[in-house]
Amino acid sequence: MTISSEQPRNVLYPEGLRFGRIPITAVAPVIEDGRFPSKAIPDSDITVGATVFREGHDQLGVSAVLYDPRGKEVQRIRLTAVGAGLDRWEGRLRPAARGLHTFTIEGWSDLYGTWEHDASIKIAAGVDVDLMLAEGVALFTRAAEERTAKDAALFRRTAAELADTSRSVEDRLAAGGTLQVLEAIRRKPIRSMVTASPAYPILVERELAGRGAWYEFFPRSEGAVYNPEAGEWTSGNFRTAAKRLDAVAAMGFDVVYLPPIHPIGRTHRKGPNNTLTAGPGDPGSPWAIGSEAGGHDAIHPDLGTFEDFDAFVARAAELNLEVALDFALQAAPDHPWVTSHPEWFTTRVDGSIAYAENPPKKYQDIYPINFDNDPKGISKEILRIVLMWIEHGVKVFRVDNPHTKPVQFWEWLIAKVNKKHPDVIFLAEAFTRPPMMHALGRAGFQQSYTYFTWRNTKTEIEEYFTEISHVSPAYFRPNFFVNTPDILTEYLQYGGPAAFKIRAVLASMASPMWGVYSGYELFEHVARPGAEEYIDNEKFQYRPRDYAAAEAEGRSLAPYISRLNAIRRSHPALGDLENLILHPSSDSATVAFSKHKETAEGKDTIIVVVNLDPHSTRESTVFLDLGALSIDAADRNEDGTFWVDDLVSGQSFAWGENNYVRLDAHVEPAHILSVRRQR
Amino acid sequence: MTISSEQPRNVLYPEGLRFGRIPITAVAPVIEDGRFPSKAIPDSDITVGATVFREGHDQLGVSAVLYDPRGKEVQRIRLTAVGAGLDRWEGRLRPAARGLHTFTIEGWSDLYGTWEHDASIKIAAGVDVDLMLAEGVALFTRAAEERTAKDAALFRRTAAELADTSRSVEDRLAAGGTLQVLEAIRRKPIRSMVTASPAYPILVERELAGRGAWYEFFPRSEGAVYNPEAGEWTSGNFRTAAKRLDAVAAMGFDVVYLPPIHPIGRTHRKGPNNTLTAGPGDPGSPWAIGSEAGGHDAIHPDLGTFEDFDAFVARAAELNLEVALDFALQAAPDHPWVTSHPEWFTTRVDGSIAYAENPPKKYQDIYPINFDNDPKGISKEILRIVLMWIEHGVKVFRVDNPHTKPVQFWEWLIAKVNKKHPDVIFLAEAFTRPPMMHALGRAGFQQSYTYFTWRNTKTEIEEYFTEISHVSPAYFRPNFFVNTPDILTEYLQYGGPAAFKIRAVLASMASPMWGVYSGYELFEHVARPGAEEYIDNEKFQYRPRDYAAAEAEGRSLAPYISRLNAIRRSHPALGDLENLILHPSSDSATVAFSKHKETAEGKDTIIVVVNLDPHSTRESTVFLDLGALSIDAADRNEDGTFWVDDLVSGQSFAWGENNYVRLDAHVEPAHILSVRRQR
Repeated sequence: MTISSEQPRNVLYPEGLRFGRIPITAVAPVIEDGRFPSKAIPDSDITVGATVFREGHDQLGVSAVLYDPRGKEVQRIRLTAVGAGLDRWEGRLRPAARGLHTFTIEGWSDLYGTWEHDASIKIAAGVDVDLMLAEGVALFTRAAEERTAKDAALFRRTAAELADTSRSVEDRLAAGGTLQVLEAIRRKPIRSMVTASPAYPILVERELAGRGAWYEFFPRSEGAVYNPEAGEWTSGNFRTAAKRLDAVAAMGFDVVYLPPIHPIGRTHRKGPNNTLTAGPGDPGSPWAIGSEAGGHDAIHPDLGTFEDFDAFVARAAELNLEVALDFALQAAPDHPWVTSHPEWFTTRVDGSIAYAENPPKKYQDIYPINFDNDPKGISKEILRIVLMWIEHGVKVFRVDNPHTKPVQFWEWLIAKVNKKHPDVIFLAEAFTRPPMMHALGRAGFQQSYTYFTWRNTKTEIEEYFTEISHVSPAYFRPNFFVNTPDILTEYLQYGGPAAFKIRAVLASMASPMWGVYSGYELFEHVARPGAEEYIDNEKFQYRPRDYAAAEAEGRSLAPYISRLNAIRRSHPALGDLENLILHPSSDSATVAFSKHKETAEGKDTIIVVVNLDPHSTRESTVFLDLGALSIDAADRNEDGTFWVDDLVSGQSFAWGENNYVRLDAHVEPAHILSVRRQR
Repeated sequence: MTISSEQPRNVLYPEGLRFGRIPITAVAPVIEDGRFPSKAIPDSDITVGATVFREGHDQLGVSAVLYDPRGKEVQRIRLTAVGAGLDRWEGRLRPAARGLHTFTIEGWSDLYGTWEHDASIKIAAGVDVDLMLAEGVALFTRAAEERTAKDAALFRRTAAELADTSRSVEDRLAAGGTLQVLEAIRRKPIRSMVTASPAYPILVERELAGRGAWYEFFPRSEGAVYNPEAGEWTSGNFRTAAKRLDAVAAMGFDVVYLPPIHPIGRTHRKGPNNTLTAGPGDPGSPWAIGSEAGGHDAIHPDLGTFEDFDAFVARAAELNLEVALDFALQAAPDHPWVTSHPEWFTTRVDGSIAYAENPPKKYQDIYPINFDNDPKGISKEILRIVLMWIEHGVKVFRVDNPHTKPVQFWEWLIAKVNKKHPDVIFLAEAFTRPPMMHALGRAGFQQSYTYFTWRNTKTEIEEYFTEISHVSPAYFRPNFFVNTPDILTEYLQYGGPAAFKIRAVLASMASPMWGVYSGYELFEHVARPGAEEYIDNEKFQYRPRDYAAAEAEGRSLAPYISRLNAIRRSHPALGDLENLILHPSSDSATVAFSKHKETAEGKDTIIVVVNLDPHSTRESTVFLDLGALSIDAADRNEDGTFWVDDLVSGQSFAWGENNYVRLDAHVEPAHILSVRRQR
C-alpha cells in the first residue's frame, strides 16, 4: 500500500485518484512533497502529524508507520487528535538506526471504536439494545478470523459473552470493553478502509549531525610566543596546539573546530584590527587562503606538516574529540588557482580578476570563485580537496559563507561526499535571510549557524526557540554558537560575567548543538569601537591565552561550561530538539522552558529558568505546563508537589504548577532543574 | 525548460538536482505540489508568488509565465519583491481562455540591473569608472546579438555612446539608462542563469464557476393554492413556478436553484416544523427522495412532467438564467433503490436497512447510501443520473451534504462529468470542519457554501474575508448565501430590515458568488423557537408568497437586491475574489473593504463601507490604503482629494486617505463607492 516516491506525483490511488478512501493531507514532516528528506538522528523523537478526516460519524483511527532503509516496518504508532475541530493528528516516531527511512500515515475506519461509542450511548438510552449487542458479536467474530490464536480465543469468548442472554445487558456490554480486549485492540486495532499516504523520506544521520558541543580555537595562537627583543612572533603549531586538547575535552566538548589551516596570501594582506596594510610580521587572516606554499589542499608551513596535522587529529580522537576544518571557498590573490585556473574566477573586461566587493566597498584580499565559467572543473577540484581531508581523518567541515555560492553546488557536493562517506558533516556558516539559510539545510547541510546571538530579549528568545524547535527542525539544525571570531554582541560586551553564563545556559540547554569560540571562558568582551567584533581580533594576530592561570584565580567560566556539558551528557532530554516547550512566567526578563524524554531508563525532564537581565535580581512566577512534563502520581509528594533538583546549585525545590523563582544574576542567573522521579 | 508534471518528483534539474541554478521555492498557488490544479475563471486575476533568491550581491529577476492548455506561452509578467528581507516575489496572472493551463516561475540573473546598480554607485564614488563603462559596452554589445533589428540597433548605439570618450562620464553613463533602453529591457530583460520552476496546473473554468448570483426557491410553493373548504393544498408546479422567473431575472440573478424535484417518500415523512408525523396533506421534505413514483431520475408528479421541466429550463434560458438542481444522495425508505439495490445501503445484523442517526438521535425518514458495498455499481448509477439531468439542460448541481459521502467518490464523479462536460458546475453544501470543506474544493467542487452566515462581527468578517480571498481562493470558491431554508441566523431574526441590507451588501460585494433563498426579500425573520431556522419551514409545507404586493407596498428588498446585482454586473472589480483588500476604520462596527481591477476599459475601483450594527447610526474614520486603489494624479482634485460616487444613494464625496463616515442603519447602512476616474 505504500507508494514509491518515484511514481508520477499526480496519481496516488487506484483509478488515478488523488484522494484515498480516507483523506490524508498536510503530512508532516514533509519537505516539498518529499523532494527532500527531513532530518533526524538515531533515538531522537520526530513529531509526525497529518490532517485526516472522513465523512459521517464513524470513528477514525490514524497511525504513523516508520520503514527502515530496506523498507521493513520498524515502528508503528497510533496518532492522537490535537486541537479541537481541526482534524489534526500527531505522534512521535523515534528511528533507531541510520540511513534513509520512510514513513507513511495510515487513516482507517475504527470499527471497534465506532461500535463501542454507538453501543455505549444507545444501550444507555435503551435504543437498539439487542441490535447493538448483536453488532458486537458480529464484530468480534469477524475480527477473530484475522488474529493469532490467543487474541482469536479472547475475541470468540468476548463474542459469546456479548451474546449470552442469561446475563444482564450491562454485563454483556462490559464484556466488550475489558482490559484484555482493550489491550488486544491497542496492539492491533480492528480496521477497515485502511488508506496509506505516500511514503515520505526521513534521513537519519549519525548522532554528531544533530548533537554535540563545539569548541573553536586558532591553532597558531596556542603556543605562539612573542620575542620582545626581535619584536617578532613565533607561531603556534599543531604540536603546541595539541596540548590544548586535554582542556577542551575536559570541558566536555565533542568537536574541535579550527579556522582555515592553509597557507595565507600576502597580497593585500590585512593587518591587526582589519587594517588595510599588514606589517611583515603580521600573520594575516586564515580566510585569505592560498600562497606560493599552496592552496586549500596545503597546510600553512607555520602550523607544521601533514604528519603534524595527522598527529593532532589522532590526539583529538584519543580524547573523543573530532576535528572540524573550516572550508572557505575563496582565494587570496596568491592562491595557485589564480594562475593555474583563472577560469575559476571572474575576469573583468580589463583582464583583471575580480576581487570581492559590495559596491563601493572593496575586499581586494579575496577573489570569489566563479562557479559558472567551468562548473565541472571547479566542482571536481573542490570534491577532490574534501575527499583529501577526509583521508586525513576530518569528518566535519564548517563551511564559510556557503550562501555566497550556488545552492545547487552544495546540493551536488554534499550528496557526492555523503554517498561515499555518510558520516561526514557539513555546518553552514550562513548569516543571511531565512530562505537561503533554510535552502542550505534542504540542500544537505547537516547543521547551520543561527540568529541565536542576536536573540536576547524574552520575546526574541521565545519566538526563536519556538521556530527552531517546532517550525524548522526537519530541515534546519541549529548550532547555537555563543560567540565567534566575527561576533561579540553588545549583550556580551556590556553584560559582565553573568551575561556569559546566561548565554551559555540558553545555548547549551535549548539546542542539542552549541558552540564556543575560545576566549569566551575568559569573559573576553572588549570590542573594536563601533563594531560587534573583538578588538585585536585573533583573525589578524596571535592571541595566546593563559587559561590555566585564569582558572586557578577563579576568573574562568570553564568550570561552568564543563558543568553544562556534563548535564547535557547525562540527560537524554537535552539531546532532542523538538521536545522544547516554553512555559510562561510573570517577569519580563525571566524565560522558562523544558525538555522531556522517555527512554528505557525512564523519564528524563529538565526545566530551565533563566534571568535574562545580567545586572539584576529578578523575581517571577513560572507557570508550568504540567502536561508537557508527564508528572506521575507516584512522583508527587502528599501535598501534590514534586521535587526538582538544581543541577547547578545542588539545591532542591518542591514545585507545582505555579512556582516562585528568584534569580540573582550575580550569584546564579539560571536554574537547571531535573524532575526527581520515583524508581 | 519547463518540467513535465509526470516526471518523478525527486528530480527537477539536470544531474538529479532538486535546486536549479537560481533557487525557486514556495511557489503559489500550488496545491499539494501540483497534484491538484488551482482554480480560476477567464479574465480573473490570480496572485502568483514564489520565494526566489540567489547567492551574492548580483541583481535577481523573477518572472511568471502562463501556458495555455496546448503548452503555448500566453502571458509573461515580471514579479516584484514584496515584504522586506523575505525574498518573496509576487504578481498577477490573468488567463483569458478556459482549460487546464500551467504556469512556471523563472528566476534569472538580471545582467542589466546588476550593471546599472554597480555602475551608478561606483561611478558616483569615482571607483572603477572606465571599467564600469567598458562593462556596459560589453553588456549591450553582447545583448544586441540576441535582439530584433530595432533593439539591436538601439543597443549598439548605446554601447557606442558608453564608449565615447569625447563625452563626459555622466553623459556616457546616462546613455545606458535612457527611456528607450529601459523600455527595451522591460520588454525583454538581459538574462543569464535562467531557471524555471516545475510547471504547476491552473484549471480555468467557465465564468459561472466563479461568478454569479443565485436565487433559491421551491417550485411547489409558486402557484400553490390552499382550498379552505377542503382544507387541502394544490401544489405549485413547473408551469406556475415558471411565472416567477421573470422577477428573478429582473433582480439580476444568474442561477435559479431548485430544492430536489423528485418524488418524496411517504414512510416516516416529516410534518410541518419537522414534526415526526405528517398529515395526509403534508407534502414532506423534498430531501426525503424516492417513492413508488421513482427516485433521483424522476420528477415529483405534483411538479409536472419532464416536458414541463424542460419548458421551465427553456424559459429560464430565455431570461439568461441557468437552472441549478439539488443533488441529495440519500433515499427515503420508499426509494426504488431500497428494493432493487439494498446493497447500496447498510444492512444491520437484524436484516433491516440502517437509517441515518447520530446516536442516540434517529432520522428514520432517511437511508444514507453506503459507498463501500458496491462502489462500482452505485457510482455508475449516480453518474447515469447526473448525465441524464445534463441532457435536460441542467449544468449546475448544488450537492447536498457532500461531506457525508467519500471525498474520493466526488473526485471521481466530478472528473468523470467534467471530462465530458467541462461546463458543469458543482456547488458543495458542506457545513463542517475546514479540512473537509477544503478537500471537497480540491476534489473538484467548483464552489462551496461557507461560514459567512455565522460571521457577523467586524473581527469575524475581517478575518473571514481575508481567509476566503487570500488564503484559500485557489481551492475554495466561496458562495456567500445570506440565508437558506436551513439557516436563519439570530442576526437576521432580530436585526430588522437593516440587517437584511447589511448582509446582502456584504455577501454581494465581498464574493463574486452570492445567493439568496426566497423570502429574504420579504424580510422573513421569524424562527422556530430555539432554532436557527424558519418557523413553518418551507421544507415541510407550501409557502406561496405575494412578492408583487410587498414590492408595491414598499415592504420588499427586491429593488435593493436588483441594485446590488446591477452594480456587480457593471463593475468588473467585483467579479474577482483575490483583489479584496480590507481598510482599517476607527469604529468597532464599521467595516471597510475595496476591490480594484484594471481592464481594457480602465481602472475600476469599488470601496464598500458597512455599518454592521443594524440598530444604530455609527460614525467612523475610514483609513484607506491608497496604494491598493491606484489613484492617479489625474484622478485627484487640486486639494489632493478624489471623487467617489455612492452607487446606492447617488451622493458623491471628495475622499482622501482618512475619511469621516456616518451610516444610519435605518437610512442606508452601507456606502458602495465607485472611484471616479478621469477619462
